[in-house]
Amino acid sequence: DFMGALSEVSAAFGSSEEELDACLTNGIIHFSPHIEKILKEGQLRVEQVQHSERTPLVSMLLHGPPGAGKTALAATMAMESEFPFIKLISPETMIGMTETQKVNAIHRVFQDSYKSPLSVIVMDDIERLLEYTPIGSRFSNTVLQALAVLLKKQPPKGRRLLVLTTTTRRHVLEEMDLMDSFSSELYVENLRSLEEVNVVVKNLKLFKLDDDRRTAIATLAKRGIEGKLSISIKRLLMTIEKARQDTDLIGRFVSDMDNI
Amino acid sequence: DFMGALSEVSAAFGSSEEELDACLTNGIIHFSPHIEKILKEGQLRVEQVQHSERTPLVSMLLHGPPGAGKTALAATMAMESEFPFIKLISPETMIGMTETQKVNAIHRVFQDSYKSPLSVIVMDDIERLLEYTPIGSRFSNTVLQALAVLLKKQPPKGRRLLVLTTTTRRHVLEEMDLMDSFSSELYVENLRSLEEVNVVVKNLKLFKLDDDRRTAIATLAKRGIEGKLSISIKRLLMTIEKARQDTDLIGRFVSDMDNI
Amino acid sequence: DFMGALSEVSAAFGSSEEELDACLTNGIIHFSPHIEKILKEGQLRVEQVQHSERTPLVSMLLHGPPGAGKTALAATMAMESEFPFIKLISPETMIGMTETQKVNAIHRVFQDSYKSPLSVIVMDDIERLLEYTPIGSRFSNTVLQALAVLLKKQPPKGRRLLVLTTTTRRHVLEEMDLMDSFSSELYVENLRSLEEVNVVVKNLKLFKLDDDRRTAIATLAKRGIEGKLSISIKRLLMTIEKARQDTDLIGRFVSDMDNI
Amino acid sequence: DFMGALSEVSAAFGSSEEELDACLTNGIIHFSPHIEKILKEGQLRVEQVQHSERTPLVSMLLHGPPGAGKTALAATMAMESEFPFIKLISPETMIGMTETQKVNAIHRVFQDSYKSPLSVIVMDDIERLLEYTPIGSRFSNTVLQALAVLLKKQPPKGRRLLVLTTTTRRHVLEEMDLMDSFSSELYVENLRSLEEVNVVVKNLKLFKLDDDRRTAIATLAKRGIEGKLSISIKRLLMTIEKARQDTDLIGRFVSDMDNI
Amino acid sequence: DFMGALSEVSAAFGSSEEELDACLTNGIIHFSPHIEKILKEGQLRVEQVQHSERTPLVSMLLHGPPGAGKTALAATMAMESEFPFIKLISPETMIGMTETQKVNAIHRVFQDSYKSPLSVIVMDDIERLLEYTPIGSRFSNTVLQALAVLLKKQPPKGRRLLVLTTTTRRHVLEEMDLMDSFSSELYVENLRSLEEVNVVVKNLKLFKLDDDRRTAIATLAKRGIEGKLSISIKRLLMTIEKARQDTDLIGRFVSDMDNI
Amino acid sequence: DFMGALSEVSAAFGSSEEELDACLTNGIIHFSPHIEKILKEGQLRVEQVQHSERTPLVSMLLHGPPGAGKTALAATMAMESEFPFIKLISPETMIGMTETQKVNAIHRVFQDSYKSPLSVIVMDDIERLLEYTPIGSRFSNTVLQALAVLLKKQPPKGRRLLVLTTTTRRHVLEEMDLMDSFSSELYVENLRSLEEVNVVVKNLKLFKLDDDRRTAIATLAKRGIEGKLSISIKRLLMTIEKARQDTDLIGRFVSDMDNI
Ligand SMILES: Nc1ncnc2c1ncn2[C@@H]1O[C@H](COP(=O)(O)OP(=O)(O)OP(=O)(O)O)[C@@H](O)[C@H]1O
Ligand SMILES: Nc1ncnc2c1ncn2[C@@H]1O[C@H](COP(=O)(O)OP(=O)(O)OP(=O)(O)O)[C@@H](O)[C@H]1O
Ligand SMILES: Nc1ncnc2c1ncn2[C@@H]1O[C@H](COP(=O)(O)OP(=O)(O)OP(=O)(O)O)[C@@H](O)[C@H]1O
Ligand SMILES: Nc1ncnc2c1ncn2[C@@H]1O[C@H](COP(=O)(O)OP(=O)(O)OP(=O)(O)O)[C@@H](O)[C@H]1O
Ligand SMILES: Nc1ncnc2c1ncn2[C@@H]1O[C@H](COP(=O)(O)OP(=O)(O)OP(=O)(O)O)[C@@H](O)[C@H]1O
Ligand SMILES: Nc1ncnc2c1ncn2[C@@H]1O[C@H](COP(=O)(O)OP(=O)(O)OP(=O)(O)O)[C@@H](O)[C@H]1O
Ligand SMILES: [Mg+2]
Ligand SMILES: [Mg+2]
Ligand SMILES: [Mg+2]
Ligand SMILES: [Mg+2]
Ligand SMILES: [Mg+2]
Ligand SMILES: [Mg+2]
Repeated sequence: DFMGALSEVSAAFGSSEEELDACLTNGIIHFSPHIEKILKEGQLRVEQVQHSERTPLVSMLLHGPPGAGKTALAATMAMESEFPFIKLISPETMIGMTETQKVNAIHRVFQDSYKSPLSVIVMDDIERLLEYTPIGSRFSNTVLQALAVLLKKQPPKGRRLLVLTTTTRRHVLEEMDLMDSFSSELYVENLRSLEEVNVVVKNLKLFKLDDDRRTAIATLAKRGIEGKLSISIKRLLMTIEKARQDTDLIGRFVSDMDNI
Repeated sequence: DFMGALSEVSAAFGSSEEELDACLTNGIIHFSPHIEKILKEGQLRVEQVQHSERTPLVSMLLHGPPGAGKTALAATMAMESEFPFIKLISPETMIGMTETQKVNAIHRVFQDSYKSPLSVIVMDDIERLLEYTPIGSRFSNTVLQALAVLLKKQPPKGRRLLVLTTTTRRHVLEEMDLMDSFSSELYVENLRSLEEVNVVVKNLKLFKLDDDRRTAIATLAKRGIEGKLSISIKRLLMTIEKARQDTDLIGRFVSDMDNI
Repeated sequence: DFMGALSEVSAAFGSSEEELDACLTNGIIHFSPHIEKILKEGQLRVEQVQHSERTPLVSMLLHGPPGAGKTALAATMAMESEFPFIKLISPETMIGMTETQKVNAIHRVFQDSYKSPLSVIVMDDIERLLEYTPIGSRFSNTVLQALAVLLKKQPPKGRRLLVLTTTTRRHVLEEMDLMDSFSSELYVENLRSLEEVNVVVKNLKLFKLDDDRRTAIATLAKRGIEGKLSISIKRLLMTIEKARQDTDLIGRFVSDMDNI
Repeated sequence: DFMGALSEVSAAFGSSEEELDACLTNGIIHFSPHIEKILKEGQLRVEQVQHSERTPLVSMLLHGPPGAGKTALAATMAMESEFPFIKLISPETMIGMTETQKVNAIHRVFQDSYKSPLSVIVMDDIERLLEYTPIGSRFSNTVLQALAVLLKKQPPKGRRLLVLTTTTRRHVLEEMDLMDSFSSELYVENLRSLEEVNVVVKNLKLFKLDDDRRTAIATLAKRGIEGKLSISIKRLLMTIEKARQDTDLIGRFVSDMDNI
Repeated sequence: DFMGALSEVSAAFGSSEEELDACLTNGIIHFSPHIEKILKEGQLRVEQVQHSERTPLVSMLLHGPPGAGKTALAATMAMESEFPFIKLISPETMIGMTETQKVNAIHRVFQDSYKSPLSVIVMDDIERLLEYTPIGSRFSNTVLQALAVLLKKQPPKGRRLLVLTTTTRRHVLEEMDLMDSFSSELYVENLRSLEEVNVVVKNLKLFKLDDDRRTAIATLAKRGIEGKLSISIKRLLMTIEKARQDTDLIGRFVSDMDNI
Repeated sequence: DFMGALSEVSAAFGSSEEELDACLTNGIIHFSPHIEKILKEGQLRVEQVQHSERTPLVSMLLHGPPGAGKTALAATMAMESEFPFIKLISPETMIGMTETQKVNAIHRVFQDSYKSPLSVIVMDDIERLLEYTPIGSRFSNTVLQALAVLLKKQPPKGRRLLVLTTTTRRHVLEEMDLMDSFSSELYVENLRSLEEVNVVVKNLKLFKLDDDRRTAIATLAKRGIEGKLSISIKRLLMTIEKARQDTDLIGRFVSDMDNI
């Protein structure tokens, strides 16, 4: 029976819910309609994997600038699938591993996923798994070759798999001929308007008084920031929290935003 | 006696029929006369190996864009030969192997084939076996040297061998001086006309009503897609199955086809 | 209780206070208001780590020319935090280690830090940890990949970490895509005016008579040194101590300063 | 006594007659006077080794396009020498060997040859022994250095050695400074005239009727093939055997010849 | 007590006096006032290390053309310091060592030096320790990284260290960012005038008669050698000793000097 | 006593006289006064090593085109020294050795030489010891570094060493900064005139009749060969021996000489 299989799966392979939760310590702030769209697109892919027999493997790439929220969004999609097998492949658990150990660790997660009727794998920061560095375009060809095969390899009969991958280096994957391996891709943007910034600042209650917040945003507007603004949600969080330590909140926040 | 030999061969070395079947989960849709021609060319080569004593080794390269159906077509040819020894060499079974382990695995299949009077080997995704990546033109010279010899090495007296290789990277094989090793080559094309798309959509019964299908194709025609159209059968399958999940089938299908 | 935890932490992991003290044998001379600013910025970051739950990890890069005082300043910040866990990661303790041993040693310090509620890690001369050399842009990709992950990896729930890194090669970190991993950066300058030199010479009592010092500085001014002056505090110390050995203090000091 | 030595030699080291025979399954067709000249040049070298004490080592390079018949011709020369020690060094027996294993295998053959008063070694496809690939000009320097020494190393007193090497990559040997190591070189050409093709077709009895053959050749002449014709004997054999499978022999042969 | 410490140090670590003596088989000939200056500069550095607490580490680079006398001069300075710990680090004792073994050997000498209150290390031919070769700018990054750290690492409290390094490749150290690690540098020149040559010839008593010497020097002057003259003391010694074997001393000496 | 030492030396380390003899199977033909000069220069160096205490190490490089006679001439010099220790370092005895094994083998010969009061080492084909290949300028840096040190390392007190090295690649040694390590160099030329060829042909008695020889040389003169002539003694020997096999001696010799 299906339910038995489900509980067996998590019993046997554990799940990554805790780690995925840790990717969401600051939650998802809906600072733009874009966020909603991304999450819905994820939901649709979850359903496709669940219902189409002809495409037992779907793999999606979330790409965008550093700190844009890729990992948090992929984690959210994975958690909301409620598939019996949900696993995170993260470079954080592979520090100091050899290339072969990394391939084995990644391979094992895929092989485990093939045991579950429905699985989702979040593969975070694929450029780190690939040990990529722009100087001399170095990377692990051993890991690359394994990923190129795994991202295309169909699960065995009756098994379905959704792979959610994140990266800041889409163009490198392009150069590596790895883009063909993804069924679809999603772009995760930075915040680009003061209105979006305003939503986040408000949400995080940086200022006790609404007037202070409005003053801060207005000052930034006056300084002509709007046009060139492109800040990641991660850096915005850091800037807000730093400002919070200062006695002069408005001054600190405005000047730091201006220096980015 | 021949029949005894045949059954001995499969008894001793097993066969890859199940794996080759798995390459054909969506069957072969005859969306173009080109498909028929490719299959017939394969049949002819099968006969040449069977009957000419002067050319005991024939090797064919199927090349074309990603997802064009190369693997499915090579699998079909191999299965239809009904040779006693039919084997698939696939990178999927070699994840995490060292270069030497890969060479040994490939070598063993060739050596096994030399035991059968008639053999066919499908060597899938040769660029993956070669661990090729365009960045810095990295690849395994160990595997390359072994393949360069194996693809030219005549089977022992009285043995005949057909090798069917697939690749998306014909030009790389050219640069590697590997093209001389093939007796012939076949180009597997993408779908390039709406009529061909229409055949596939109809075959897969995406729309319950023929009128809907006609509307969808007509809309695509109006958008001027015909001229620039080049879609692989694999991606078309993915697009169709995704559309199937949506409530607005026509809209989703048309817009996704338009975005490719 | 917190106090118990603190003493446990240093009991279990030791501390690097002695090594950090050794970085300060010549103390901090306040030859410019810039020094004060840098130290205050450090203090602010210490407080942010201590109080904001949303940013449990803050990492700062101190960069500037060789000998500018980066290590001494980072050591001062770390000591003044009075966090229970204060550790120095220095290439001096890693001579002759393999890349993997270095990664393990670095990794262990981070893992130890995760055991303390509040930690500060001084990572000195990151280009040496990375085994960087400009000839052929060689470096250890193994160490780089580990650092790229560790500098972004959030400590576990309830733990906070401040990382202070020093380098003379900020542009190399840029090329390595490592700059995104730092929350902020500080530039540590050379001495650029004779007035600053004067403060140091006075402080170190090179001349017994104030008149001699004034004569020396005036001579340097006359030679037109002011405009092109850029000397590190470390080299200035060396020049002063060398001059001290000579019978002709003024002559030696002036001529050596002139030759730099 | 000499005869005793001879039979001892083959007893001790075996011979490669069977492998060399296998290089000649399609015999030598005398489609051009060039063939005779090459074989006579070989005979002359055999005699030089046999009679001159001053040149106990002679090494010859047979080079030319892929499939031109180099291996078959070298094998013929070796067999006709009737030296007591005749050995084939072929990459086919070295698949999957490490560079060191290859060097050892090659070295052993030379060392064995030093035991026989008269020896001939056929070293086939030297670029494959060297593991050469044009991408990045990769090759095994370990093998190259061993060959550079072995091809120049005089056999011990009283021993004589003829080395026959084949390659399609003479210019690579040039770049490797290996050409100085050969005493002489021979160029093995492709077929370049329809008359030569005619001889081969006749010899292999592709057509039952002489008229059909003449028609086929005449058609090719009409199509203006003569001027640009350059086909290897190996490819011509493949084309003939393929045509043989077809019902329309003339049509298939003509069109395939036209497409080369 | 200090004296006890001194004798303990040499007892425990031995000294390199014999090897350093061997560097001086031809003594120091004072052919130019430059020689005196170099030796005095060395003496000054010795005193600085001895007396300044603020600069417990001083490192000096002697650089100049091949054979100019760098090693002999560094050996002289080291011997004249009369420090309790005097050690030579020379590539001659490291032939065939791996990079790691070299690093360990070098590291050990530094660690031993930290046990003595006053130490001097002569590090000869640093480009050889670095295994540098201009073709492809190859070198041992393992050794480089260790030296970059050791040359900057302060000895422990109460210990003082003088490092004397020699090289013919100052510009390579520059490219390696290693020049920042030296406290000072000294240029050791070739002989550039016939007067200097004359001093050496006289000193070594090449000619029994002063007139012969004067004739030889005069002939060289007449040939216009003076302007382009640049000969190392090492090559001059070789030329003199070779001439000494000839019956025609003047002729041989003049013609060889002319051919350099 | 000296004589006892001598016989001990050869007893302990053997000698390479047999191998050096083998380098001289065709003797030294005095086809040009140049040959005499080279041999006398060698004699002079032998005496220098024997008599000068100031230059206990002399190293000489014999360089020139392939086959010019470098090895034969170096062997002759070594044999004529009659030093108690005479050793050949040849790549022929190092086939298949690793770089480290080669370094060890070379190092041992030098170390053995230090036991003898007077030693000569012939180091043949140094570019082969260095595993040099022009493609990608590959070579063994491990061997290079060892040679760079050994060629400069003074033997211990009371020991004298002469090193005779041969190469066809002087410019490569230049690029490797290895030329500074040699005390002197000698150029070994090809034959460049028909008169020199004539001497060799006569010496080897190719023609029974003097008239035939004169006719052959005259014919070559008429063909205008003189101007462009540059043939190595080795290739000339090969050409003569090949011609000897032919019935038409003059014809064969002339045409082969013409084709070089
Ligand atoms: N709308 C949002 N989308 C994504 N993250 C959000 C959003 N709102 C708040 N966050 C918070 O912002 C942070 C985004 O960090 P995250 O690690 O997901 O970014 P990233 O793009 O993966 O960064 P990196 O490029 O460093 O991997 C998380 O702490 C998350 O909780
Ligand atoms: N006419 C056809 N030719 C080939 N495949 C077809 C055809 N009709 C339907 N298919 C289906 O299309 C898919 C083609 O995928 P296949 O893996 O063979 O493509 P590929 O070219 O090998 O892809 P890749 O470049 O990723 O290796 C298979 O599922 C196959 O069943
Ligand atoms: N204002 C100051 N800032 C920093 N260092 C100072 C200052 N005043 C005096 N010093 C002394 O100057 C020296 C600075 O050396 P330090 O090693 O910190 O420089 P650095 O920039 O880390 O050098 P490097 O580039 O070699 O790593 C220390 O001895 C320190 O005690
Ligand atoms: N005149 C001929 N010369 C050479 N081979 C001939 C001749 N006539 C017929 N043949 C046949 O042609 C084939 C030549 O193939 P062979 O392997 O010798 O070519 P090759 O030049 O060595 O090829 P490759 O470049 O692939 O190594 C053999 O089967 C041989 O029997
Ligand atoms: N004034 C002098 N300075 C240095 N060496 C001298 C002087 N006078 C005589 N010599 C002798 O000259 C020789 C110099 O050789 P040394 O090995 O020191 O040169 P080097 O510059 O280290 O050479 P290399 O570049 O090969 O390392 C020694 O034998 C030394 O005794
Ligand atoms: N005058 C001569 N000088 C040198 N060799 C001579 C002379 N006369 C005859 N010979 C013979 O010529 C041959 C020269 O070959 P040798 O191996 O010495 O040349 P090489 O320059 O070392 O060649 P390679 O460049 O291949 O190492 C030997 O057989 C030698 O006996
Ligand atoms: Mg992320
Ligand atoms: Mg495929
Ligand atoms: Mg520092
Ligand atoms: Mg061949
Ligand atoms: Mg020296
Ligand atoms: Mg030679």
